[in-house]
Amino acid sequence: VNIPASSLNPVPASPVRPAPPLRELSVGLVGPGQVGRALLDQLLAARAPLQRELRLDLRVRIVADSRRMWLDHENPSLAPDAPGTRTWYPSDLDQFGARLGALPGPVVIDCSASESVAERYASWLRAGLHVVTPNKLAISGPLERWHAIGKARDSGALLRYEATVGAGLPVVQTLRDLIATGDTLCSVEGLFSGTLAWLFDGYDGRQPFSQRVRQAREMGYTEPDPRADLDGVDVARKLVILAREAGMDLSLEDVHVQSLVPPELRELDLDACMQRLQDLDEPLARRHAAAAARGSVLRHVGRLHADGRAQVALEELPADHPLAQGRLSDNIVQFRTRRYADNPLRVQGPGAGPEVTAAGVFADLLRVAAEVRA
Amino acid sequence: VNIPASSLNPVPASPVRPAPPLRELSVGLVGPGQVGRALLDQLLAARAPLQRELRLDLRVRIVADSRRMWLDHENPSLAPDAPGTRTWYPSDLDQFGARLGALPGPVVIDCSASESVAERYASWLRAGLHVVTPNKLAISGPLERWHAIGKARDSGALLRYEATVGAGLPVVQTLRDLIATGDTLCSVEGLFSGTLAWLFDGYDGRQPFSQRVRQAREMGYTEPDPRADLDGVDVARKLVILAREAGMDLSLEDVHVQSLVPPELRELDLDACMQRLQDLDEPLARRHAAAAARGSVLRHVGRLHADGRAQVALEELPADHPLAQGRLSDNIVQFRTRRYADNPLRVQGPGAGPEVTAAGVFADLLRVAAEVRA
Repeated sequence: VNIPASSLNPVPASPVRPAPPLRELSVGLVGPGQVGRALLDQLLAARAPLQRELRLDLRVRIVADSRRMWLDHENPSLAPDAPGTRTWYPSDLDQFGARLGALPGPVVIDCSASESVAERYASWLRAGLHVVTPNKLAISGPLERWHAIGKARDSGALLRYEATVGAGLPVVQTLRDLIATGDTLCSVEGLFSGTLAWLFDGYDGRQPFSQRVRQAREMGYTEPDPRADLDGVDVARKLVILAREAGMDLSLEDVHVQSLVPPELRELDLDACMQRLQDLDEPLARRHAAAAARGSVLRHVGRLHADGRAQVALEELPADHPLAQGRLSDNIVQFRTRRYADNPLRVQGPGAGPEVTAAGVFADLLRVAAEVRA
Repeated sequence: VNIPASSLNPVPASPVRPAPPLRELSVGLVGPGQVGRALLDQLLAARAPLQRELRLDLRVRIVADSRRMWLDHENPSLAPDAPGTRTWYPSDLDQFGARLGALPGPVVIDCSASESVAERYASWLRAGLHVVTPNKLAISGPLERWHAIGKARDSGALLRYEATVGAGLPVVQTLRDLIATGDTLCSVEGLFSGTLAWLFDGYDGRQPFSQRVRQAREMGYTEPDPRADLDGVDVARKLVILAREAGMDLSLEDVHVQSLVPPELRELDLDACMQRLQDLDEPLARRHAAAAARGSVLRHVGRLHADGRAQVALEELPADHPLAQGRLSDNIVQFRTRRYADNPLRVQGPGAGPEVTAAGVFADLLRVAAEVRA
């Protein structure tokens, strides 16, 4: 049917709408460690431009560590020479949540590595507190708790955890966008540990591997106990997080993980383990030599398939393999989907370190701010 | 100062907040070409899951091409066999904007390649209509118009254009997050044209380059006039978009562009140009041979520096250079920033095609939806 334009009733022009007011978000930070402190510095530095350009007022109102917390301090810097005095109270997550919840736009930022904090997510979300975190424990933890957290989001409160995978790299949001726009995940594969990427990128088989581990530990690239990197569980947690993002009910125990820690080192205390770290050397030197003889390299790879299979292992890859193209501590994440079937969508770059991790948390916080109009 | 917890007044627990209502967004699409049609299909397929999972009701209410438009049809599919009849009116962007603006959560999606549509952005935004687009014309167009568009966003209406660079790849949002969280851009470099990436990825110097261009054109990889790809202006527009995202006042004429189109082909009409396309062959074969003799490859690279220098050119790169690692029509975008200084943040993958471009637009629309609570 074709109708002339003149038959449409005239529509009055919409009036100009006024600019939105400054939105306030009240931040409560749990766990002011390396990442938490980097984040506080970034928030402080960005406060004025965010007020000016995004009409957003981000105020850090509570900071709690495992022992003590302070409330309502005007200057959130934790620098020792920051002006003003601060009143400390014993740390109490009930008080933390209740007081934050009474403030406008409450957002918990969990930079702890604490199970007891992860246990609070559901009740915080139910009460309307948003949660942003680089802490993998809740997101990759027991399925029952994860479902309770999902249910708690029915309150409209938001949960964001971009920095749990690849630190500041856009990984979780990218997968979320693919799924939400109707794409179908086929697989995710990649180098998910900056530490293990660094260890194997520079490993030539001549320097003992244990010496590389010691070197990485001294530079702060590993956890204090390097077995927490070498056992592959951290990478397995990241696969669980991505699987759940894609709608799978995956749990940590479903991931097939090949640990790099020899069985005889697993039960030792840290000092004894560090004394015997050279137990790593010979098996890895043998694998490296075998790979090199075939023109291949060793890389620590995580793989997740759409059918729920997930594995973490040291793999031998051709030197020109896409997953062998990272440098230093680069993470690489490759999504294959129905739309990205021939060539994957690939994100690569430094995937660890306080500053880039804090920036990932900060970007999540801005997403929450954008969605929460006062 | 340390104070016992008992001195804190008890705070009543926050009440459980109710779930948010279904939010409605009213979409008006301009330019139902390949990308627009793919988007309509994706919106239709995702409608039920978005209602269920994101409590979001995306309704396509107006579709306009350059000649005609329809209003308020229940089934937005443009498939010839879609059920129901549709009432067509002569296309009229005033009517389009006024009617859409009277609906809840109005979003214009501009999938045209039209200057006359780009001219409307400022007035639409001023009137509170959000705008989402893969059309580069407004975002990379004259600086004065771009500033007017920026000013119009003071109304609170949102403008999103992720799909203008790298189609569905997370490029614009990634840069926006870096800047908003306080990082400083040092440079962006990459392969920004899927067409040119494809042409040079498979170019071995034996097959005449013009034959590759013809082949790409037949497969729909190039614009109908392949000079629109070969002249590099499209890549220059993408650099302008990224520069402006990083806060620079860059314009198209500031970008130093080396066109691949020989001067004698520039003024010909399309048919005459296609007849003489072999004029491309000899100079490129010579450059390819010289590069190959040095173990290098040719890649079409765009570069933007923090000081505003921007260039687009065919470059000779070592075969193991990061920008030589793409396959087929992969785009590659590398951000170097203060935080990503040693190793860049890198995004790679297919950067053209109706489906992935539509998905980039769709992801933007979801971002708008998240920020617009009814």
